[in-house]
Amino acid sequence: MFELHPTLEKDSIPVTETDGLLIRLINDARFPWLLIVPKVDGATELHDLTDHEYAAVMAMARSLGKVLKHAFDADKINTAAIGNMVPQLHIHVVARTRGDDAWPGPVWGAGTMVPMSDDEAARRIGLVRSALG
Amino acid sequence: MFELHPTLEKDSIPVTETDGLLIRLINDARFPWLLIVPKVDGATELHDLTDHEYAAVMAMARSLGKVLKHAFDADKINTAAIGNMVPQLHIHVVARTRGDDAWPGPVWGAGTMVPMSDDEAARRIGLVRSALG
Repeated sequence: MFELHPTLEKDSIPVTETDGLLIRLINDARFPWLLIVPKVDGATELHDLTDHEYAAVMAMARSLGKVLKHAFDADKINTAAIGNMVPQLHIHVVARTRGDDAWPGPVWGAGTMVPMSDDEAARRIGLVRSALG
Repeated sequence: MFELHPTLEKDSIPVTETDGLLIRLINDARFPWLLIVPKVDGATELHDLTDHEYAAVMAMARSLGKVLKHAFDADKINTAAIGNMVPQLHIHVVARTRGDDAWPGPVWGAGTMVPMSDDEAARRIGLVRSALG
């Protein structure tokens, strides 16, 4: 029985759910930052997924990268599966802009998350949902 | 005409080349750390790749993660396409161990690379090559 890890639940907002994947928005005003969480109980590594599950995750990672790049006029997309702190498998897709709060370093471990206003969260979610179609 | 970015050339050692992908070992004794560089001139984002190229990269990322996990008895694999500093598309696959020099933070931007001895480089390359078969 799959349950979202409480840290991911706390740090992010649901965007959509499709093909066995939860898509969530990290609640951080500093960066447009999405998570893909495959609903696979116990998965921690990409190689824990079946071929079908892996293909779904990777197709979504690429789509979300393209969506974020255009919707947020990003200079670079950062895509990563890290999971040193939260073992439940989750894939980050982050829109980066030259001069953003962590540039050119990675966002993971960079400073403190800055919660978004409800309006900004709704705006970001709307952009992603409409781009995904 | 594809040419490896000079920073990637300087920081890493060739392991093998297959299916349009360069596999290289980052010269850092602190972490078993591989790079996948698709030989696609001008690619900077995952979504710049064709379906075929993307499938090759993603299959290799997963294989190398599994190889590193077992060969280096890793606690976690970190897989990422970042490229904020080196625009040429490259995918990191890093074996992480609880208590390593950057744990639980990411390796990117963590301290200074520690060059390996020739023996250690040969050992790591041998492990990866033989696991890839």
